Amino acid sequence: MTDLSAYADLDLGRAGRRGYPEAVYCAGKTPSQVAGIAAEMRTHPEVVTLFTRAAREHAAAVLDVLPDAFHDPDAGLLAWPPTPPAPAGGPVAVVAAGTSDLPVAREALLTARYLGREANLVVDVGVAGLHRVLAHLELLRHARAVVVVAGMDGALPGVVAGLIAAPVVAVPTSVGYGAAFEGLAALLTMLNACAPGVAVVNIDNGYGAGHLAAQIAAPADADAAEADLT
Amino acid sequence: MTDLSAYADLDLGRAGRRGYPEAVYCAGKTPSQVAGIAAEMRTHPEVVTLFTRAAREHAAAVLDVLPDAFHDPDAGLLAWPPTPPAPAGGPVAVVAAGTSDLPVAREALLTARYLGREANLVVDVGVAGLHRVLAHLELLRHARAVVVVAGMDGALPGVVAGLIAAPVVAVPTSVGYGAAFEGLAALLTMLNACAPGVAVVNIDNGYGAGHLAAQIAAPADADAAEADLT
Amino acid sequence: MTDLSAYADLDLGRAGRRGYPEAVYCAGKTPSQVAGIAAEMRTHPEVVTLFTRAAREHAAAVLDVLPDAFHDPDAGLLAWPPTPPAPAGGPVAVVAAGTSDLPVAREALLTARYLGREANLVVDVGVAGLHRVLAHLELLRHARAVVVVAGMDGALPGVVAGLIAAPVVAVPTSVGYGAAFEGLAALLTMLNACAPGVAVVNIDNGYGAGHLAAQIAAPADADAAEADLT
Amino acid sequence: MTDLSAYADLDLGRAGRRGYPEAVYCAGKTPSQVAGIAAEMRTHPEVVTLFTRAAREHAAAVLDVLPDAFHDPDAGLLAWPPTPPAPAGGPVAVVAAGTSDLPVAREALLTARYLGREANLVVDVGVAGLHRVLAHLELLRHARAVVVVAGMDGALPGVVAGLIAAPVVAVPTSVGYGAAFEGLAALLTMLNACAPGVAVVNIDNGYGAGHLAAQIAAPADADAAEADLT
Amino acid sequence: MTDLSAYADLDLGRAGRRGYPEAVYCAGKTPSQVAGIAAEMRTHPEVVTLFTRAAREHAAAVLDVLPDAFHDPDAGLLAWPPTPPAPAGGPVAVVAAGTSDLPVAREALLTARYLGREANLVVDVGVAGLHRVLAHLELLRHARAVVVVAGMDGALPGVVAGLIAAPVVAVPTSVGYGAAFEGLAALLTMLNACAPGVAVVNIDNGYGAGHLAAQIAAPADADAAEADLT
Amino acid sequence: MTDLSAYADLDLGRAGRRGYPEAVYCAGKTPSQVAGIAAEMRTHPEVVTLFTRAAREHAAAVLDVLPDAFHDPDAGLLAWPPTPPAPAGGPVAVVAAGTSDLPVAREALLTARYLGREANLVVDVGVAGLHRVLAHLELLRHARAVVVVAGMDGALPGVVAGLIAAPVVAVPTSVGYGAAFEGLAALLTMLNACAPGVAVVNIDNGYGAGHLAAQIAAPADADAAEADLT
Amino acid sequence: MTDLSAYADLDLGRAGRRGYPEAVYCAGKTPSQVAGIAAEMRTHPEVVTLFTRAAREHAAAVLDVLPDAFHDPDAGLLAWPPTPPAPAGGPVAVVAAGTSDLPVAREALLTARYLGREANLVVDVGVAGLHRVLAHLELLRHARAVVVVAGMDGALPGVVAGLIAAPVVAVPTSVGYGAAFEGLAALLTMLNACAPGVAVVNIDNGYGAGHLAAQIAAPADADAAEADLT
Amino acid sequence: MTDLSAYADLDLGRAGRRGYPEAVYCAGKTPSQVAGIAAEMRTHPEVVTLFTRAAREHAAAVLDVLPDAFHDPDAGLLAWPPTPPAPAGGPVAVVAAGTSDLPVAREALLTARYLGREANLVVDVGVAGLHRVLAHLELLRHARAVVVVAGMDGALPGVVAGLIAAPVVAVPTSVGYGAAFEGLAALLTMLNACAPGVAVVNIDNGYGAGHLAAQIAAPADADAAEADLT
Repeated sequence: MTDLSAYADLDLGRAGRRGYPEAVYCAGKTPSQVAGIAAEMRTHPEVVTLFTRAAREHAAAVLDVLPDAFHDPDAGLLAWPPTPPAPAGGPVAVVAAGTSDLPVAREALLTARYLGREANLVVDVGVAGLHRVLAHLELLRHARAVVVVAGMDGALPGVVAGLIAAPVVAVPTSVGYGAAFEGLAALLTMLNACAPGVAVVNIDNGYGAGHLAAQIAAPADADAAEADLT
Repeated sequence: MTDLSAYADLDLGRAGRRGYPEAVYCAGKTPSQVAGIAAEMRTHPEVVTLFTRAAREHAAAVLDVLPDAFHDPDAGLLAWPPTPPAPAGGPVAVVAAGTSDLPVAREALLTARYLGREANLVVDVGVAGLHRVLAHLELLRHARAVVVVAGMDGALPGVVAGLIAAPVVAVPTSVGYGAAFEGLAALLTMLNACAPGVAVVNIDNGYGAGHLAAQIAAPADADAAEADLT
Repeated sequence: MTDLSAYADLDLGRAGRRGYPEAVYCAGKTPSQVAGIAAEMRTHPEVVTLFTRAAREHAAAVLDVLPDAFHDPDAGLLAWPPTPPAPAGGPVAVVAAGTSDLPVAREALLTARYLGREANLVVDVGVAGLHRVLAHLELLRHARAVVVVAGMDGALPGVVAGLIAAPVVAVPTSVGYGAAFEGLAALLTMLNACAPGVAVVNIDNGYGAGHLAAQIAAPADADAAEADLT
Repeated sequence: MTDLSAYADLDLGRAGRRGYPEAVYCAGKTPSQVAGIAAEMRTHPEVVTLFTRAAREHAAAVLDVLPDAFHDPDAGLLAWPPTPPAPAGGPVAVVAAGTSDLPVAREALLTARYLGREANLVVDVGVAGLHRVLAHLELLRHARAVVVVAGMDGALPGVVAGLIAAPVVAVPTSVGYGAAFEGLAALLTMLNACAPGVAVVNIDNGYGAGHLAAQIAAPADADAAEADLT
Repeated sequence: MTDLSAYADLDLGRAGRRGYPEAVYCAGKTPSQVAGIAAEMRTHPEVVTLFTRAAREHAAAVLDVLPDAFHDPDAGLLAWPPTPPAPAGGPVAVVAAGTSDLPVAREALLTARYLGREANLVVDVGVAGLHRVLAHLELLRHARAVVVVAGMDGALPGVVAGLIAAPVVAVPTSVGYGAAFEGLAALLTMLNACAPGVAVVNIDNGYGAGHLAAQIAAPADADAAEADLT
Repeated sequence: MTDLSAYADLDLGRAGRRGYPEAVYCAGKTPSQVAGIAAEMRTHPEVVTLFTRAAREHAAAVLDVLPDAFHDPDAGLLAWPPTPPAPAGGPVAVVAAGTSDLPVAREALLTARYLGREANLVVDVGVAGLHRVLAHLELLRHARAVVVVAGMDGALPGVVAGLIAAPVVAVPTSVGYGAAFEGLAALLTMLNACAPGVAVVNIDNGYGAGHLAAQIAAPADADAAEADLT
Repeated sequence: MTDLSAYADLDLGRAGRRGYPEAVYCAGKTPSQVAGIAAEMRTHPEVVTLFTRAAREHAAAVLDVLPDAFHDPDAGLLAWPPTPPAPAGGPVAVVAAGTSDLPVAREALLTARYLGREANLVVDVGVAGLHRVLAHLELLRHARAVVVVAGMDGALPGVVAGLIAAPVVAVPTSVGYGAAFEGLAALLTMLNACAPGVAVVNIDNGYGAGHLAAQIAAPADADAAEADLT
Repeated sequence: MTDLSAYADLDLGRAGRRGYPEAVYCAGKTPSQVAGIAAEMRTHPEVVTLFTRAAREHAAAVLDVLPDAFHDPDAGLLAWPPTPPAPAGGPVAVVAAGTSDLPVAREALLTARYLGREANLVVDVGVAGLHRVLAHLELLRHARAVVVVAGMDGALPGVVAGLIAAPVVAVPTSVGYGAAFEGLAALLTMLNACAPGVAVVNIDNGYGAGHLAAQIAAPADADAAEADLT
């Protein structure tokens, strides 16, 4: 195994500096590189480490080093230590417009939980049947932040935002075909949502949405540590 | 005035061939060319002629030749003879998501009327306040074709289609800014509408939408004339 | 098998509400999820269920649960119960510009049939040889709605629309290469068709086109059921 | 003046339903339509009404009806009643990367204030001179939500997010030329920010950013009213 | 007037080298620069000089120096000496799909004539009425090269190419709106024409099309001069 | 094997009507469909049939039916009867900018030959070493049409056009990576070539370029047959 | 005049930190803001300040405060103090492909001079006549950095790079029309240049190109000052 | 093995003409073609030959002919003769923003070395943790040229350029997903970098960046050989 410093410079101080630890983005890294990072993190159990966009080989490499890591193959996510912290702050709701949006929605859900929030999932509530959205209004209105995951026309976040007071974090997905253009259509819809209160993250970026929701729903007294950049 | 044949070859047989007359697209034509066409049509009062996308100069040129023509400046539309035919077929509903979509919506409304349909307009029913859509359900459900005009996120047609049995003709508009990209966002949203039953026309193409709605809502016994292309 | 509610919330009331049942979009769902939905639908033989964009694995999963389901592998479509309803309303014509457009055209054809319309198919009538279009004029002129499926330059719908009174539902396909940009060229062509009367659906969306054609050609007395969204 | 119902259907219940009132988007409306809406709002002083994207003519029309309205011509914003509510919730910081981003930044700043938050502005802190960002760290770290407004490369929000615990609402602006593509470059940069914690709104959408920041920084006990959509 | 060499390096040998002279592209040049070039060309009456994309100011500057120059304001074209050479080679046909395409079509027509070809114009023969194309078949079939100018869906060149043996030079125009995207839709259509035999030039590039048609229809014994590049 | 009429309607009269036979585009057709067409063409040896974009399976299917067909696997082309017609008209030159452009260049070369022209190939003459272009000037200047095939920056056609009198048919290829965008960069370069005399076909469309070159270099007395479209 | 700190935070230490001073980008600033900055710089004659993209109003505002500033209206550039520093380092050559590219080329030329380099300009050397490029080879080969400015097909930088040892800084311009897409075509061409040694800056960014050329041609002993970012 | 002249025309004089040898771009070439070129180069050991974008099969083909060639599989690069020349000129620094950018960064690093420069690599210094950039300031400030390789938001080059005097060669990578659009987002960010001094090459073009850096850092007395193009 190559020396870690040849390919990575871990930002172990990020949790101290920002309040949230650095995650390991596996796509584009070799399994061996991911294993090297996992080995380093094994010596830092005080940091909650998420491995995102982990393909089967990445997951195997992580589990070889951290056998008790939590692993959700659909979401491509691993977490170590495996137990999420006790929830603090307000609740987060994650809404998936369709069944095909579930992997991204689960990535958001788990990220929010591992960053310390209570988080609940609602599935298959697309705008083609509005009654399905309306049936979940109470849950949505009690959340401090709502993540809405949708592909195709991406219309759901705007509809949800029009019904609640909390901010909506919208995640366009690459679900769809043709003029969905791998999520571009949903992305543009969300950026142009008629209802204000919709913030957009990258296509299929469940991790970013869960992170943002965790920040929005953070306890009021959450203070960033004093950083030292010099 | 230049000879008409130097710049146009009117398709006077189109109403006979297709059941609907040719319209005069004014944008890109000089007022003098439009006037020449108007002069020719004056000799064909049996044909309902629409002048679309008529700027002020075009309208003046038409009215100079056909002083009693109907003129809606907001929609950029003139019609001659000025009285629409008696309505036949089923009713058409035209829905404008926002106030800024009204010019396009009116172009659709008037086109449907001048092609022989009863047509009604509903305004300002965007998805940011769903109760506004739901308040018009009865009107929408009695229409044989519904034209939905929306800019920005273009989410309304999919929501309407999920509520009714009739086809929705969706018209994206260039209303919006930034990532609306002059109507591209709304266009893509509509093409990817989760609810089936949405057909899309060009951005800001109220004329095309009204024409299509008139065809959909045509009397069942409307037969195309026998054409002769040889 | 996971509990159905963990990944889907079937809209069984859609046929009652809109007059047309919900279809199951298989792409992006796991075969196991599709099988779970099929199992649920087995208890609802009064609903005609279409499974669209079904890959081989999806089809196997459906057929395992519903062995007598109709299956067209080229179109990626399954239907259950297997026999389409008796046709009502006007006839639908489906035109495929080229041989490569056939899978999408068949998806439209079968959708229209399973939604209760008589539907006929015409193949290989591209604009490079106009006589091939003209040879089918009679069929096209007797249809209440015409679906035209074309890739590459996507010019056929505009040509057909110029010849008939009925609405044309245009389906761009991803057939082609290079500057066809996976169907974008055909899509833009159709949106800009010089002849009015062309409505466009998403690239390769045979299902949506067949659905729309079925709606356009619906019996005049087809009434949407009274919905209750509260 | 035409009857208000001919062009608008005001959503006066939105503040009750969502906790935030509807704003009036002036672009695309005629001054006369805007004046009609202003006249209606004059009878609702309990609602804080923002008029956004108001050109000179729109502003004149509003001021004619509501002479004491607050008006910031650079931001294209008017507010009535003119005095913002007393601040509640956490503080909002608005950062403008360059001088040219100021109009959009001011729209965000004023929106947050009129929706009830304390909000402060920091100007000209682009990434070409990092010391300018670092000089404002204390202000940024005490905010509950930070709006970062940037054109050209749009790199600032990611840099800021890497330094603080609170969510960053990123606003790409159309400042720049050439490959800035009217804000598209900045938009893409922000969607791909390496640091998590960046939520993006539409290009030049200061209003949306200010609204979102106000929601994020809302008092913890802010409850959405019980809505009635039936 | 600044010295010519400060802004231009005329390629007076091009006619000798390639058989066709250099044209002066006026857009982006100041009238004073165009005048300087015209003054230089006045001393070279043996070269046929075309001034293309000449706005009113450019034309005035040229006519000031070369008062007898031929000027077609619609096409933005000037030619000097004013009389085209005697035609040689085969005939060129120029077809304009719509009235709005006429300025570009005329630029092509005049270019072909000033480069020494017989050239004829046919107007308003869009695909919405195929009989209009078919009525001109004889003229089209006797041409050695056919220029087809079309905006919107750009479908005409493919239809024409399917009917004749000669090459079609297709010119997309920026005529249209919305999803015509300033000629992009027509450009893509033409690049994907189902019928082989379609060559495409830049949007609105009547000059290039006329030049190419002149080359295609050149006399068989036209020999390029021996060039010396050293 | 399904009946031919179920998936194709061969245009056997095209050679008579246009002077050039219809080719069979294999991509998107099943091998079985291609075999069916090949079987039909076996009964028409008077027509030169090209099978383009033939993958290995398509080629096997054709060779099964027409064992003596000519086959160039790199170009994905088959021809039957296998011997090209005796050359007539002027010579065609095909220039490949780089080694990777060879498959497309060979498709153009062979198409021109099978349509009856003498055609020669020049390889690896990119603009990074101008002397390589200049070394072939004599060959290029004696051609009646020059096909230039180039990927990446696509600059070669403009350079060649500046050196010769004959028309240049430019073929952008998908050779390159990154901002080559699958040939889009080369396509745009060619459409904007500073030197007039460049006509562009679709990305990787060697067949279309060879066809066009054959038309340009056709014998002067080549007459289109009299067609009958009625 | 508003207080400077309300809209700008000048980076006066940049010359010390980087070796090159900050320029003032005028577009998007009000003339009054630009005047405020000019007033501040008047107290810093040791810094060479460039005002770029200065429209007429900006220039007037600067000249009002710094009457002896150098002003090139075509390039939209002002410099103060007006005399460039004595040249050091290697020579820079700036090449403009066409007359219309001159304003951008002059911006690059003047920037290089005011940053302390000898710089020379060559005009109108497009690839349509290669002899024009070759005529300037000696000048190009003696430069330490060559800026090549080109619109339309943007092919010149790659051709020049293939002829010299020094780096080429390529500047795409928005000169052209249609598929030039405001400089996008030239930008892509340059990014895909077949000859290595081409570095690209933003469309029309003469300032950036001149700055870069000045850095490349800097004296070998030019040392960055020791910066202090803490 | 086919004759070399059938597919390539090696530019052996390039090193003499430009000072840098031609590289062999393997993508799109068959292994057999690459082997043929390698065999030819074996007879030219005085030329340093780089084989770029070499897949496993290409590498095997080269190593079969030149068994002692240097091979870096991650970078897809081979070099022969295997030992780089002794370094001359100034030092080059190569910075990789993330671990996934390493293959491209190594291609740049090795190219610079084989073209005769000292070159050093710095890894994983993204803008999400600015302290990581600042920690390498001394190395960066002593380089004569700095290559910065970054995907996703591509913000790093602008940040680095703001800190140093030397030119930054920015390489966008295709690392990322969704709205990264295969490197387009990073490319646009870099083209719009707020800090001047950033030159951009094609996405993933490590070779071009290393080449450019080698040219920038060339010894001052490096003279291009006198070329002869006639």
